[in-house]
Amino acid sequence: MDKLYDVVIIGGGPAGVSAAVYTARKQLNTLLITESFGGQSIVSDEIENWIGERKISGLELAHKVEAHVRAYEEKVDIKLPERATKIEAAPCQEDRVCDFKITTDLGNTYYGRTAILAMGAHRRRLDVPGEEKFEGKGVSYCATCDAPLFTDKKVAVIGGGNAGVEAAIDLLPFATEIYLLQRGDKLTADPFVVERIKSEDRVEIIFGADTKKIIGDKFVEGLIYVDKKGAEKKLEVGGILVEIGSVPNSDSVKDLVKLDTYGQVVIDSKHVTTSQPGVFAAGDITDDPYKQNNISAGDAVKAALAAYAYIQKLERRSPATEV
Amino acid sequence: MDKLYDVVIIGGGPAGVSAAVYTARKQLNTLLITESFGGQSIVSDEIENWIGERKISGLELAHKVEAHVRAYEEKVDIKLPERATKIEAAPCQEDRVCDFKITTDLGNTYYGRTAILAMGAHRRRLDVPGEEKFEGKGVSYCATCDAPLFTDKKVAVIGGGNAGVEAAIDLLPFATEIYLLQRGDKLTADPFVVERIKSEDRVEIIFGADTKKIIGDKFVEGLIYVDKKGAEKKLEVGGILVEIGSVPNSDSVKDLVKLDTYGQVVIDSKHVTTSQPGVFAAGDITDDPYKQNNISAGDAVKAALAAYAYIQKLERRSPATEV
Repeated sequence: MDKLYDVVIIGGGPAGVSAAVYTARKQLNTLLITESFGGQSIVSDEIENWIGERKISGLELAHKVEAHVRAYEEKVDIKLPERATKIEAAPCQEDRVCDFKITTDLGNTYYGRTAILAMGAHRRRLDVPGEEKFEGKGVSYCATCDAPLFTDKKVAVIGGGNAGVEAAIDLLPFATEIYLLQRGDKLTADPFVVERIKSEDRVEIIFGADTKKIIGDKFVEGLIYVDKKGAEKKLEVGGILVEIGSVPNSDSVKDLVKLDTYGQVVIDSKHVTTSQPGVFAAGDITDDPYKQNNISAGDAVKAALAAYAYIQKLERRSPATEV
Repeated sequence: MDKLYDVVIIGGGPAGVSAAVYTARKQLNTLLITESFGGQSIVSDEIENWIGERKISGLELAHKVEAHVRAYEEKVDIKLPERATKIEAAPCQEDRVCDFKITTDLGNTYYGRTAILAMGAHRRRLDVPGEEKFEGKGVSYCATCDAPLFTDKKVAVIGGGNAGVEAAIDLLPFATEIYLLQRGDKLTADPFVVERIKSEDRVEIIFGADTKKIIGDKFVEGLIYVDKKGAEKKLEVGGILVEIGSVPNSDSVKDLVKLDTYGQVVIDSKHVTTSQPGVFAAGDITDDPYKQNNISAGDAVKAALAAYAYIQKLERRSPATEV
């Protein structure tokens, strides 16, 4: 018989950990399934906006949140590294409440009376040589997080959608010159941000630019792109912001909860509920407009407290039993 | 001419500080007006659920968040201690954008193009004779802070919600006997804490008890309450913990934004907007269902980013000028 947990939390970033600390403190039997702790910002050399810490590396933050959740191991079973491949509503049986079945890459099956989706997202990558090597060493995927790191530098922003153009705007107070590289022949961002960026002398927009390689020694020194005529060009920059989109890790729940056109889990922000009763979501996997570590943590606390309230209601209907 | 700030943030708890760190990083000229840093939990001896910290005192947390915002003093003017007494929409003038006028207890006037309300809440008082006289002399509003002061004493806890029942649990290692006074006829706390407290021999729950007076000489010696039959009863206790809820600090904005029946600022959770365009709110002052430090921080980050987006739109209409 598989154990039926009160809550199964998928993900070990700021959202997953925050949810687990709170469900444990509410005495809920919690399962946390994650491939790693720390979430997307684990690659950051320096995080300056995790509230309460002037400067902390992504790795240090990952260790801190892992230590916090491990202080509650009496109530939280941690499965690491393990990846949930499918989360589905288990059929209700007469002698127990409805619940959710989680299948993983290790072939395990777990059951939860509720589920908190905290799988986050991953940045769409260029997939060019040098990108991985210089990630956190001049290559960034988050202007809001890292713009101040590019003070007095020339910076390339790759991507001409809203994220790219807004990243360029975010860089204006810091960077000396900004190159905005767009593969196509026009910017696809909203007209008003396009107007704004076109009026800036320090921003040069390069259309038809296909980035091929990131170069440098210990830190980014430039990039190579192919221009619209097929010629190879070199751009000397001290930083590169890759803003070509983010992909929510929602494949395992695409048949369980409503997703938006970007694959993000649609939530009601107040109670962080999804379209499926008993399933809550927080952090970068959701359609919340802003993606930040503290937002993920705060919304995951809401998810934990909402799951707790949901279980209190279930318990008035029928007691939990083993499946 | 008063300076026109991009953002005026009212409050120095986790919400206010988080908002200021983010607006500063967005290069917005920010004013932070607060009576103190740290918010309501500054009185806690031990906080175990600030994500990333297994244990931290309220004072330590206050120092950490203050240090974080002070790292951005180039962009954030901090007015401390100062209290905003009135926040109102300033009339629009031809040569500048609409904005908000903030009046303070020191007689100062500040202007902001946007405002972030992060004033939090304060504990509700009984408002009975003797309460003020014996505050700090046996009357407390914080079990975590003061439980050790009641060693070997009989203690009354007033309030049967989560705060009251948890206060009674906090007192168990110290007090000899605990009376839990609830005005209604049942405890409204979460079931598992209710079960816990009901199993304790040293806790007597008194339903239908309406506290009328606190008595003593130099220190609390007891209280008078009216029981459910209308009879006046005396309880001899050496300490009283008042745990009857929280009151949002929203008086200064009652004519500016929509409040709910509890006086909480009504927000749209997704963008933390209020009924007044340009005014955002986060933390314990809002009608968000859960009040927790991490939620305040996360929602304040949303407020900062929403204020930033709002200002980007304003700038398309007209440039900011001095008032």
